[in-house]
Formats: sequence, structure tokens, C-alpha cells
Amino acid sequence: MTGDAQQPTALVLSAHAADFVWRCGGAIALHGELGYAVTVVCLSYGERGESARLWKQGGMTLNDVKAERRREAEAAAAELGVHDIIFMDLGDYPLVVDRDDKDRLVDIIRAVQPRFMLSHSTYDPYNTDHMLTTSIAIEARMIAQAWGHNPGETVLGAPQLYLFEPHQTEQMGWKPDTFLDITGVWDRKRAAINCMGGQQHLWDYYTNVAENRANHFRRNSGGQAGGRAARYAEAFQSVYPRCVDEL
Amino acid sequence: MTGDAQQPTALVLSAHAADFVWRCGGAIALHGELGYAVTVVCLSYGERGESARLWKQGGMTLNDVKAERRREAEAAAAELGVHDIIFMDLGDYPLVVDRDDKDRLVDIIRAVQPRFMLSHSTYDPYNTDHMLTTSIAIEARMIAQAWGHNPGETVLGAPQLYLFEPHQTEQMGWKPDTFLDITGVWDRKRAAINCMGGQQHLWDYYTNVAENRANHFRRNSGGQAGGRAARYAEAFQSVYPRCVDEL
Amino acid sequence: MTGDAQQPTALVLSAHAADFVWRCGGAIALHGELGYAVTVVCLSYGERGESARLWKQGGMTLNDVKAERRREAEAAAAELGVHDIIFMDLGDYPLVVDRDDKDRLVDIIRAVQPRFMLSHSTYDPYNTDHMLTTSIAIEARMIAQAWGHNPGETVLGAPQLYLFEPHQTEQMGWKPDTFLDITGVWDRKRAAINCMGGQQHLWDYYTNVAENRANHFRRNSGGQAGGRAARYAEAFQSVYPRCVDEL
Amino acid sequence: MTGDAQQPTALVLSAHAADFVWRCGGAIALHGELGYAVTVVCLSYGERGESARLWKQGGMTLNDVKAERRREAEAAAAELGVHDIIFMDLGDYPLVVDRDDKDRLVDIIRAVQPRFMLSHSTYDPYNTDHMLTTSIAIEARMIAQAWGHNPGETVLGAPQLYLFEPHQTEQMGWKPDTFLDITGVWDRKRAAINCMGGQQHLWDYYTNVAENRANHFRRNSGGQAGGRAARYAEAFQSVYPRCVDEL
Amino acid sequence: MTGDAQQPTALVLSAHAADFVWRCGGAIALHGELGYAVTVVCLSYGERGESARLWKQGGMTLNDVKAERRREAEAAAAELGVHDIIFMDLGDYPLVVDRDDKDRLVDIIRAVQPRFMLSHSTYDPYNTDHMLTTSIAIEARMIAQAWGHNPGETVLGAPQLYLFEPHQTEQMGWKPDTFLDITGVWDRKRAAINCMGGQQHLWDYYTNVAENRANHFRRNSGGQAGGRAARYAEAFQSVYPRCVDEL
Amino acid sequence: MTGDAQQPTALVLSAHAADFVWRCGGAIALHGELGYAVTVVCLSYGERGESARLWKQGGMTLNDVKAERRREAEAAAAELGVHDIIFMDLGDYPLVVDRDDKDRLVDIIRAVQPRFMLSHSTYDPYNTDHMLTTSIAIEARMIAQAWGHNPGETVLGAPQLYLFEPHQTEQMGWKPDTFLDITGVWDRKRAAINCMGGQQHLWDYYTNVAENRANHFRRNSGGQAGGRAARYAEAFQSVYPRCVDEL
Repeated sequence: MTGDAQQPTALVLSAHAADFVWRCGGAIALHGELGYAVTVVCLSYGERGESARLWKQGGMTLNDVKAERRREAEAAAAELGVHDIIFMDLGDYPLVVDRDDKDRLVDIIRAVQPRFMLSHSTYDPYNTDHMLTTSIAIEARMIAQAWGHNPGETVLGAPQLYLFEPHQTEQMGWKPDTFLDITGVWDRKRAAINCMGGQQHLWDYYTNVAENRANHFRRNSGGQAGGRAARYAEAFQSVYPRCVDEL
Repeated sequence: MTGDAQQPTALVLSAHAADFVWRCGGAIALHGELGYAVTVVCLSYGERGESARLWKQGGMTLNDVKAERRREAEAAAAELGVHDIIFMDLGDYPLVVDRDDKDRLVDIIRAVQPRFMLSHSTYDPYNTDHMLTTSIAIEARMIAQAWGHNPGETVLGAPQLYLFEPHQTEQMGWKPDTFLDITGVWDRKRAAINCMGGQQHLWDYYTNVAENRANHFRRNSGGQAGGRAARYAEAFQSVYPRCVDEL
Repeated sequence: MTGDAQQPTALVLSAHAADFVWRCGGAIALHGELGYAVTVVCLSYGERGESARLWKQGGMTLNDVKAERRREAEAAAAELGVHDIIFMDLGDYPLVVDRDDKDRLVDIIRAVQPRFMLSHSTYDPYNTDHMLTTSIAIEARMIAQAWGHNPGETVLGAPQLYLFEPHQTEQMGWKPDTFLDITGVWDRKRAAINCMGGQQHLWDYYTNVAENRANHFRRNSGGQAGGRAARYAEAFQSVYPRCVDEL
Repeated sequence: MTGDAQQPTALVLSAHAADFVWRCGGAIALHGELGYAVTVVCLSYGERGESARLWKQGGMTLNDVKAERRREAEAAAAELGVHDIIFMDLGDYPLVVDRDDKDRLVDIIRAVQPRFMLSHSTYDPYNTDHMLTTSIAIEARMIAQAWGHNPGETVLGAPQLYLFEPHQTEQMGWKPDTFLDITGVWDRKRAAINCMGGQQHLWDYYTNVAENRANHFRRNSGGQAGGRAARYAEAFQSVYPRCVDEL
Repeated sequence: MTGDAQQPTALVLSAHAADFVWRCGGAIALHGELGYAVTVVCLSYGERGESARLWKQGGMTLNDVKAERRREAEAAAAELGVHDIIFMDLGDYPLVVDRDDKDRLVDIIRAVQPRFMLSHSTYDPYNTDHMLTTSIAIEARMIAQAWGHNPGETVLGAPQLYLFEPHQTEQMGWKPDTFLDITGVWDRKRAAINCMGGQQHLWDYYTNVAENRANHFRRNSGGQAGGRAARYAEAFQSVYPRCVDEL
Repeated sequence: MTGDAQQPTALVLSAHAADFVWRCGGAIALHGELGYAVTVVCLSYGERGESARLWKQGGMTLNDVKAERRREAEAAAAELGVHDIIFMDLGDYPLVVDRDDKDRLVDIIRAVQPRFMLSHSTYDPYNTDHMLTTSIAIEARMIAQAWGHNPGETVLGAPQLYLFEPHQTEQMGWKPDTFLDITGVWDRKRAAINCMGGQQHLWDYYTNVAENRANHFRRNSGGQAGGRAARYAEAFQSVYPRCVDEL
């Protein structure tokens, strides 16, 4: 998961094993093609709360479900060209993150030195694991910036934290400010989606989302005058302001 | 005010003659140096409500005050390298914009074909002229996009509308998402500020703002690790999402 | 457009000729089947701002475009079983509503005596006509409730005002609180959509929206336990609280 | 309505004839006893929209209703010790305020030179007249501050604008930051309320409000430790920050 | 506390022993009469923070106060026809809920299988126990929906979570969207209120609230045209959208 | 740290050793001169996260850094006339506050019996220690008000909690409602600032802030008419409403 000085890096914090696929699979594949080493951290496997199909087929243990979700996530990561995928296995529904887990996450952040980070919306009354992950992402980013945390290590700069698209966006108070054209890597994202055997009811859902976000991309890049002919896009909300040399 | 196809353009909508100086003088000068033709539209001279110093010296008519504010604004525009400055003379405190004025503004927008626009915050309980200007900016941008408005003209694309920094930012519900480094053109902005003889109480105020926004630029470009050594900056809030190929 | 005392009624206020189709065509068809007489008021034809395809084919006058958009809207209304469709022809981009127009709208509201009303989101920085329509809807509803407005007429009760789904929901600050299952009338909504020859780029977009809102319907009616097997749904935000006898 | 330099003054802007009674009658009576000259401006009589009882009794003309509401308002003003009550007669449901009306209001504000102003909440989807009044209050306050508006007149300082309590506070987005103990003048407020023959359904409602706001006064002045033993209070939201010498 | 398949159920989560009485006693009694089995969970007795009257009389131990508050709550529950009342005794000021407590709460939720749940506002700077309770309610609801939590148990569906009325509603950011007519059960709610010997200062306060919410019920069910003649009502805010077959 | 019945008191909760200087040093010095005994509680020294300059000079241990930051804070407190400064040494980046720490804080609050409290903004995505401190301040204030917490002790009344100015105010959702003129004690605040050797990059930043807040003070106390000639000011946001006898 190490970031080479020559190579740009990015870091995804995913509450459950599958979140990174639906919500930023296109961004991952695209930045891989742009030369980024993208690291994905799955805080849990979503074994209890996001594996209903597996539990319904019966005869499963918690370890069986974890193993299956891990297999799916690794397959999806391979399709997306993920540089490294790390499973922290912290449990889900509810996710629990203690001080040692935070420190481990800080170690990862410092090792990766990401140009940008990706995580969940700040509010989610359907899924408190999502909220907690973002809250931990913000806290760990802060600790990673502290000169007095493991003095001597290279401290973190000020990477953007993008909040990827949640389910039922309006209920989350999530408002995207950035649309990313993922047309060129759509086939890879759909291939990764197809790895998620446990959640087939979401395959077409997130295909619809990608198509409709492309409409937003076209509209915001050109209005009625046309705009870029994107066919698939992803949307993100920035937590921090950006620093530019041209508007 | 015409935008040449080879040359990028930008358009500033300023409620009163001086607003463009304090709030985006750096952006104007910088983009001029980057090759943009920047057009400034002053909807009024700020003759009634923002010329207290002139009125206090007595013996002034409304036309005297307008002439003096226009002279100041033109001098400031010259310092900033403004391509064109247009005075619509619509009155202030309160500013009044009728249907013909909107159409005139749409004509200007279409003639300029700006890559981005700049205007006021969307809320301002101290100054309703500011709110009205932004509301008109949004409406005129929409009309300029309509194929059926003066059919045959080139319609507008989807330029960003940046809201420049208001006075007492927190009371306006304004939240910047973009910091622009204006260190290289600061001397020109300060020179333009110095043209504003009628509002000397704001010269140091907006110098302080520029210095402190540079602190924010450094902090957001590098955290405790340093960041870009900007000494002067300006801050902006975007109305629309942006469309990108890399996060 | 008269509401018979025996028959429930509903009223849709659509800024442009096509809005009622994309945004609440399912609700219209469904309530028609439930026995409601649904009246649609189109404040404009969307002739200038939402007819790009017609203008691009050249040789069109404003009246040509209006006639074509009217024809489309009437065809769609027929597919949806609309009881009455009224074209106020107030112009678009920008829509302009004067005092007489408001009074005319109040007359319609009082004649219809709707159990509920439908209109746009309260905010829309892409389309000020939408915002204006909702603002007028709220004002006209208030006037229709006044005993001193045309004394002797039957005053309006307190119908709910539902805000139907805008484009780019998150940018509008629109948050749905009500999902309506339109599976049973989907074919009729799609048939109405297909009447909108001028905006073919939105046909699949709003089909995707209906499919994804059905996912939300299922999720909110049953969670992982299943929920109602809706395949198409529409979403609405309520302006006013509702009064109930059971939670 | 003139403010004497020795005497403090306050100004109430009431959309309809009765609003000042329910919403700030206590503040009016109390400040009268504190030596303020309080001027009340009623923009309309509430003749069309807030006089249902009168219209229901039949045989009324608009002028009859206005006369009756004026009589009630004057009686209430007398009970409250109002210094001056001005009826602008601008119509209601909807209230319409043109440029001349604004200028007239600015004249009043400058003549009164209020230490503070009182008006409605900034949002009210039940009553657009209320919103408009506050919007006009903010605009007129700004014009009254302009040195170039009727040069030579004494300009306005920066009086606070308090928003008094609307009906259904939560729907208005109104959040009080100031509780005023009106125990000592409650009898006078109730006497003024009793003058409002046209709206008897609100007498006990606003008595309940005053009792419950006193609970809030006690709770915020002392918590469980007791607090001031207020029995009646009114609540207000401030638009502008306040300037102090002690926290 | 078991929910019989034939019988609808509801679940109330009350931070302190008395909260359920003031805030949703009417809803409890009414749904009891409608055939619901309503279970109330009191996370604490409010022994430290909401029993000032008892402490002031001196000579009390913590257990004395708990016993007294329990006795009051049980008496009130009896008046309201509560099906089951459960005291978790988790402490107050501050309430502390650990992982085992959450699991116990999930067990209760699954046993009850409520059609809807009731709890506190999401924000309360006067009382962090209230906020915590709602946060736990949302988390426990999520866990109860997870197929992998105690596999084999019946998972929870998607019951609405209503937030009942807090004290000083506007400070809590609480906005009701549902008014419930409790006129028919008011006498029972008042009898339950009268059981709360420790907080007599709130008896009339919440009677005033019920009367004024009935005004809101009338206004929103009929406007000036009348509306339902409710005399007592309660107000609630919904956390989740609702799924309907008719608007 | 004891509050004498004759002497008014105030309490500052500062997440890190230096926060109280930048953010409310003027309020501290001014209230000292007004006769208040002001107690400052530093929850941590800011040793890990706000001491970059010390760590960069190398050869430092955590204890060295703590000692140096404590020395600076004590020197600053002396300049400001602080009555008592308490270091809780709870760690930073992240700050961790357990139940015993809360109880200790409640003891301090009860001992001080402050007329008002000061702490951080409620939101800060750059610094979660700040958010936590405010959240703890609200919780500890609540516990201190409880008659059943250490029965027999004097309970806390209802002191205001002012939120002092954060860095990058707009990103924190912080909106000041109170400006305090600190012109008379500015020299003492600047002397205290000069004690903060570890953060020299902030000396001029917070001088600029004080100058610009004085502009706001002047503007809000007099508008264009002048206002109080403050040269330095501080800004605060109130959490609770205030209770008054005159508006």
C-alpha cells in the first residue's frame, strides 16, 4: 500500500466490503489508468448487515459470510485495478472503531500519503456505520497531520476528502459539487459490480445512477449548448475548499 | 466586450461601482495576465448608498457623485487590466432591474460568452442590492442559454457562477469552496483599492482579508506540512457543480 | 375544470408544458384511476427555453414552437387521463406572472377545489421559472383561502402542496418525504413521455428515475425484509404538515 | 410619530392590522412603560384574508371590514400605550408594496429613528404577506441608512430588527434568541387581545403562548435552579448581531 | 412485550421515565384504543436530572428517587393503556448506553416488531440524553434489520421513527410534519400527566401545548374554511419518507 | 478557582493550550477588568497536533513539548489576568474524555459557578478535538444542573455558552451574534499572543481578525452613521437564548 514519491496515490475508506464498488468504482478505475496507486480500506465485510442474500440461503456461519464477501471484494478490486485492498475486519451493524483501530488507520494514511481520500456521506439515518466511517476518516486525517503523532514519520499534507454517492442521496443531506466522467472505464466498473453476487438488486440501480449522473455532467459542462458527451459519471461532495491558480 | 473565439473570457456582475475591486480584483488581474478578457458590469454606481464620504462633504448632486464613482471605478479597472467596463446606471438603495435591463444583460452575457461569471452572495440582510444582483445573474444566465431567446444568436454554455466574498461572510450564509492565490497580482489589486477614495475605511480591511485568505490557502494546500506559500488570496463559493476528468 | 362535490380533485401547476409529464405523470394517471379529476395548468409552453430541438431544426417562429409543444402536452395529457389541461401562455425564460394572472390562477384553484396540489421545488438555480411557479402556487393558495377575495365564492380549504421531483435533486435542496407506487400506471406514464418529441434525451433519464425511486419505495416499506415489490415510483416533498388519526 | 432626541423610540411593522397585538403587544406595552415612544405601522388591515368572521356575518363591503379592523387595531393600540399608529392601506392577500410605498416607509423610519424594529419571520408558506413585510423592512432599513437618499436628512443608524413570533413557529424556520419578560404588562396585552373581536379563536391561543414562553424564560434564566419567576413572556429572533461591552 | 401477528404494535423509546407522558401520551392512548399493543422503554428513571422536586425535599437516596419515578411512570402507563413498560435503568445526566445495552434494545425491537417507533428530537443542547436516545434508536433499528444479527430471528422491517415534541422546539431544530388528533383520549393523557408528581410545573405547560397543536390541526386540515374541530393534538416529525398508494 | 458570591465569574473551556488566547483573550482580559474571576481549563496542551514548530526543531519528547506549551499558556494567562488556569492533560489529536474526566469538569463548573462559559464551534472538520470539547461542555453543563448529581452541592444555573471564533469560520457553520469591543485591552491580548512562540504564523492573522471584527462592531452599532469607534473586537455565537427586560 506504499505510495511511491513518483506515483500519485488515492485512498478509499469503505465501511463495508462492497461500498467502494457502487460508489466510486469508476473513480478508482479511472485514476488507476491515470497512474494513481489506489488503496482501498474496507473497515468491515458488511457480513451481518449487507449480506441478506447469503444469510437467506441458510447454513452460513459468520466466517463463511465474511469469506464470501471478501472474495467478492477482491474480485471487484481486481477488475478496478486497485493497487492494494486492506480488510480491517472491525465488524458491522454496528461498526466499532477503537483507539488502536484509529492508530492503524493513521498508519495506513501516512504510508499511502494520498492526494485525495474518498469516503461516505456525513449523515445516514439508515446506516450509522457509514456516518461513523466518515467521522473516523476526518479524525484520522487530522491525527495523520500532527507532527507529534509518531514524531519522525512524514506527516500528511491536506488531501481533499470526497464523499461518494450514498443511497437515497436527499435523505443524507449530501450535495455533490463534482462530477467525474467515467465513460472510458464504465465496462470495468460494471464488471466489478457483477462480482457482487450478494447484492444483485443493486446492479441495475447503480447503472441507472451512472447514466443519470452523465446527464448531469453534460448539463453542467454545456447546458442546452451540448456539453461533453459523457455516458457514465460519478458524483462527489468535497469536504474542504480547493486551492487553485485559475478559476 | 466581445469575446474572441481564441481568447478566454470572464464576466463580473457588480451591484455597485466598487464591489468588483474589493471582492475579486485579484481574480480579475490574475485572469487578465492568464490571457482572459475580463468584462465588468456595474449595475449601479453605488451613488446613494455607498458614497457617504462624498455626500458628507456637501454641495454634491446625484450626478456629481455618479461621475466621481465612475471615475474611481474606471481608474481601478485600468489598474486591474479589465478588458471592458460597462455601467448600466440602474440606481442603488434600491437597485431596480426591469425586463429591458435583464434583456440588455443577456445580450452582454451572450456577447462575452464567459468561461465563468462572478457575482455576490445569495443572501445579504445588510444590502438587498447584492442579493438582487445574484438573483438576476442566475436568471440572465438561464435566459442566455435558451435557444428561443433571440433565435439565431449563439446560446450560452454552462459557465460556473462564483460568488465572491461579501462583507461579514457568516451573516450571509456564504461558504467559500475555492481559494485563489493572488500573490502575484496583489500590488495591482492594492493599487486598484487605492483608487476608491470614497471608501478609505475599507482599504486595510480588505488587505487583512487577503492576508488571512492566504493563510487558508496555505492551510488547505498543505496543512501543517506547509502548503503553497501564498501571501494573498481570494475566496469564492461555486453555485454549480464542476465537471472533471480527475479528482 | 370544475370539481364535482362527489368527485375528488387534484391540481398540477407546471411551469412549462412538459414538466407535469416527467415529474408527476404517474401520480396523475394513478389518481385518475382512483377517481380523481386531475386538472393541469401549464403556465407556459416552455417555448423559448425547453424546446432546443425544435429551434435547432430551423425555420421556426415562436408560435410554431408553442403550437408544437401544446400538441405534445395535450397528447401526453390524454395518455395520462387528465381531466382538464389549461394553458396560461405566460411566457418562459423568464416566466412572468402579474396580478391578473394570479387572480386567474386563484379562480382556477377555487373552481377545482383540489384535495392536493402539485408543483416544483422551492429552489432551482438552473431554472428560475420553476422557483417562481412554486412561489406563485403558495401565494395563490393563500389568496384562495381568503374570505374577502371575491366574497361569496367558496373559499379553499387547506390542500397539501406536494413538490414533485426536480432535475438534479440535490442542487435544489429538495428532500422527498413521500414515495408513490406507480407500477400499475407506468405504461401510461411512459406513453406520455413518448409524446415529448422535443426532449428525447430525457425519456430514459426519467425511466431510470422511476426505477430507482421504486428501489427506495421497497427499501422504505420493508428494509432488508423485503417491502412492497414496486417496480416504478415517484417521489414528492410536502410543504405542509399532515393531519392524521393514526400514525 | 416623531422621535424626540430625549426619548427612545421603537418601530413595529405589522403586515395586517392585528399582527402587532398577538406577536409583540407585550413588548410594546413594556417599552412604553420604559419611556419609549412606540410607533406601529400596519401595512394593511388584513381586510380580505384575516377577517373571516366579519365576512361570514354577511352584508359587508371591503370598506366596512377595513373600518372595523381599523377600529379594533386603534383600540388595541390604546390599551398598549402605542405612541402612534399608521395605516398604510396597501391591501392584503396579497399585500402589494410599490416604490412609492417603500419611500413612504423610509420616511417613517427616518422620522422615528428607532432604537429597534420589530417585524415578521423571514419565511411563511401560509402567509406570503408576512414574508414580504420582513423583506421590505430589511430593504427600507437599508435605504434609510443611505446618505444619498434625500440628502440632508438624518440617516438611520443600525437598529436591531427583531422578528416576532409567527404562528406555527417550526414551519417558518424561526428560532428565537431573546425572551422578554412581559409579566408586568400582561393585563394590558390581554386587554388589547380582547379588542380583536374578529379573531376570537386566537385569544386563548396566544395566552397559552405567553404562559409557555414564560416557562422558557424561567428555564433559560435559571435552569433547574429556578430562574426568574416570569409568568408571561414573548420571544424574538434577531436578524443582526449585537454589539456589547460585557458578555 | 411480544407483538402478536394479529395485533399491530408500536414502540416508544423514552430517555427518562416521564418523557413518554408529556410528549406522546396521547398517541399511546389513542393507538391502544385502535388495537395496538404499545410498549414503552424507559432508558433511565430521570433520577438525577429530572427529579429536582424530590431531591429538594431532602433525605432521599438515588434508589428512593428511582423507585418513586418508577411508581409514577407505571401509574401513568396504566392510565394510558400501555401494553408493556420496560425500565432499562441505564442512568441519566448522563445516560450511558454500552454495546450490551444496544443488543438488549435490539432484542426488544425484534420482539415487538413495531409498525412505528417514537423517540426524541435529533438535537437538544439542553439535554444530551435526549439526543443520545434518538441516535441509539436509529442504530438499534438498523441492527434489528440485519439478517446476520442473531441469524434465524425474524428481522425488522422498516418502521417509521417519529420524533415526538421536545421542550423549546425551535432550539432543537425539530419541525413537525404530522399532527395527530388526541381529543378523544385527552382525559386519559391528562390523568397520566397528573401522575407526574415530581414535575408539576409541566402539567399546564403540556396542556397548553396540546391545545395549541389542536389549533394547528384545525388550520392544516381546513384553513379558514374550518377544518376538523380537534381540541387537543400532538405533533411529530418523521425521520423516514413514507410509502403510499394515494397522495 | 472558587467563585466568591460577591464576585462574578466566567469559565473558558479550551481544547488545546493556546486556543483561549487567539479566540477569547480579549474577553478574558476585559472581564477581568470588569471584576470577573475568569477560570481557564485547557483540556490538553496541544502537544501533538499544535506544536509543529517545536517538533520540527528536533530532540523533543512529548513531556518537553507539554512543558513548553504549558509555560507559554501560563505566561499568556498572566498577561490576560486569568484568575485560575487548570490543565487537565487529556491528550490531543485526538482528545479523549472519559466519564471521570467529565465528572472532574462538572466539579470545576460547580466550583466556579460561571455567569457565562466560552468554548469552541460545534463543527470543525479540520479539528475534531474542538467539536468534542464543545460537546463535552454542553454535556457537563447539563450534569452540573442536575440536583441528583452529588446531591447537596450547589447546582448550576443556566449560564450562556458562547462559542468563540474558530479558524476558517465559514467551514465551521459558525455564525457570530455578539461582537465585543476589546479596544481597551488589545495591548494585553497582543502581549498574550506574543507568548505563543510555537505558533508565530498566527500572530498577525489574529490581529487582522481583531481589526476586521472591529469594523463589524462599528457597522452594527451605527451603520453608515458611524457607530462606536472600536478598533479591536471579538465575535461570539450564543448557544442559548437570552432573557431580557428590555429589547
